[in-house]
Amino acid sequence: MSKSGPSPRSAYYDFQTLQTRWEDNDAYGHMNNIVHYSLIDTAVTNWQRDRGFFDVDDVKFMVVQSGCTYFAEARYPDTVHAGLRVSKIGRTSWTYEIGLFRNEENAAFAEGFFVQVQVDDDTGRPSPIKDTFRRHLERILVSP
Amino acid sequence: MSKSGPSPRSAYYDFQTLQTRWEDNDAYGHMNNIVHYSLIDTAVTNWQRDRGFFDVDDVKFMVVQSGCTYFAEARYPDTVHAGLRVSKIGRTSWTYEIGLFRNEENAAFAEGFFVQVQVDDDTGRPSPIKDTFRRHLERILVSP
Amino acid sequence: MSKSGPSPRSAYYDFQTLQTRWEDNDAYGHMNNIVHYSLIDTAVTNWQRDRGFFDVDDVKFMVVQSGCTYFAEARYPDTVHAGLRVSKIGRTSWTYEIGLFRNEENAAFAEGFFVQVQVDDDTGRPSPIKDTFRRHLERILVSP
Amino acid sequence: MSKSGPSPRSAYYDFQTLQTRWEDNDAYGHMNNIVHYSLIDTAVTNWQRDRGFFDVDDVKFMVVQSGCTYFAEARYPDTVHAGLRVSKIGRTSWTYEIGLFRNEENAAFAEGFFVQVQVDDDTGRPSPIKDTFRRHLERILVSP
Repeated sequence: MSKSGPSPRSAYYDFQTLQTRWEDNDAYGHMNNIVHYSLIDTAVTNWQRDRGFFDVDDVKFMVVQSGCTYFAEARYPDTVHAGLRVSKIGRTSWTYEIGLFRNEENAAFAEGFFVQVQVDDDTGRPSPIKDTFRRHLERILVSP
Repeated sequence: MSKSGPSPRSAYYDFQTLQTRWEDNDAYGHMNNIVHYSLIDTAVTNWQRDRGFFDVDDVKFMVVQSGCTYFAEARYPDTVHAGLRVSKIGRTSWTYEIGLFRNEENAAFAEGFFVQVQVDDDTGRPSPIKDTFRRHLERILVSP
Repeated sequence: MSKSGPSPRSAYYDFQTLQTRWEDNDAYGHMNNIVHYSLIDTAVTNWQRDRGFFDVDDVKFMVVQSGCTYFAEARYPDTVHAGLRVSKIGRTSWTYEIGLFRNEENAAFAEGFFVQVQVDDDTGRPSPIKDTFRRHLERILVSP
Repeated sequence: MSKSGPSPRSAYYDFQTLQTRWEDNDAYGHMNNIVHYSLIDTAVTNWQRDRGFFDVDDVKFMVVQSGCTYFAEARYPDTVHAGLRVSKIGRTSWTYEIGLFRNEENAAFAEGFFVQVQVDDDTGRPSPIKDTFRRHLERILVSP
């Protein structure tokens, strides 16, 4: 959260193309600051779903922290390209970083993060990240 | 849905006071047409919750039709007063009508309806309206 | 609004593919009834934008009535195909009908309508539909 | 963003009471992580509006960064009490911190921040915070 400027697309992996909706624009005529989180939330969920994170019955994922830095405006009807990467993997939680790019632009208009914890459905407590999940997360882990 | 003009508050019962949010305003600077449905949905759910509609485990309520006529603009930070009435009670479904009023105005800025059906949780099929629900619905039924 | 069952895709023209978002699902685990209006609103706006409805400075479009009939559930991560048609063209207003289709299904899970009026920016009053707009609307007008 | 646990109400000033809506609950049956930002956005805007921040024509306020830490779940129909404080005032930007409290609970279920910059309408560039705004911000500035 101490970045001085937006990252290029090359800083992210596993891009998704997301649509904007007319109602995403607020009274200033640009995408309301809340919508960025909706796009981030959907990008992360899409990514996890494609990799089987929801094919298990015994754990779920809770967001424990999120954040976003806004570099420039976006607005409906822009197409948003969301790039993902993982910046940290702990024992029971991990951190996604997401870059949001407008249309064909190479500099992110916003960059956010999203910390999730794996929670055991029975106990409601954090549980060690499943090996299969960890392997997927490591594939987009930023080299330290 | 063939009304020629807005109803006054006296046409509705059981008023609720609902807040608007900054993001409710769209690029035209007024409440987006979708938000009216969010207010209607919440007004109906509040009313049902207060009367025990959700204290049962064996049925749920599905929306099968909804609609709204827009007479005038509203916008954040308006306070919205939502009045309810029931226009029809069938065997398994019923129709709410909702008037939305801005601040101290007496003419509705929008009027909508919301048809719900009671669905049996086991069969997933419509089931006869429970007597206790029917009694609550009849209390705000418009005289024919 | 008196339909007995869902229409097939062949009843609509000019299809668009719309994405769902994770937050579209409500506590029942399906697309909240409000989201249908967001998809309809965006489908109509996309269609109009592609045809130059927003390239003029002297008029805007206001929604005066909308409605939706819900035939079946949809949910994130479904892809929604929205078909449009025009059912009525008046002097200053017109009516879109929109069919929403899940993934590869041929029967609409919901069908809605959306009445718009062309409003003169100076007077704030309804104004006669511009000829260029009328020609586009007529192209998807349902034969009586 | 490095907090180890939730703050009590006494850590915040200028509380507002905010309503939840039925659609705020997501498929997990709790308030979606995005909704917290909607509540924060509205709480800040309410506070600013009451203090004349929008009575001027020559500047607007842009969000440049936001974030939220989630300590516990909240859900419709909870009432949310939002407390505000200012943690930093710069030359052209400042930081709000917002604590969100459920019903009568004394520990925040979420705490967020919201960095705004004052932008000159003509130049589109950051401009020095107006004295009247600065005085309001200082009133809820956390002592260092």
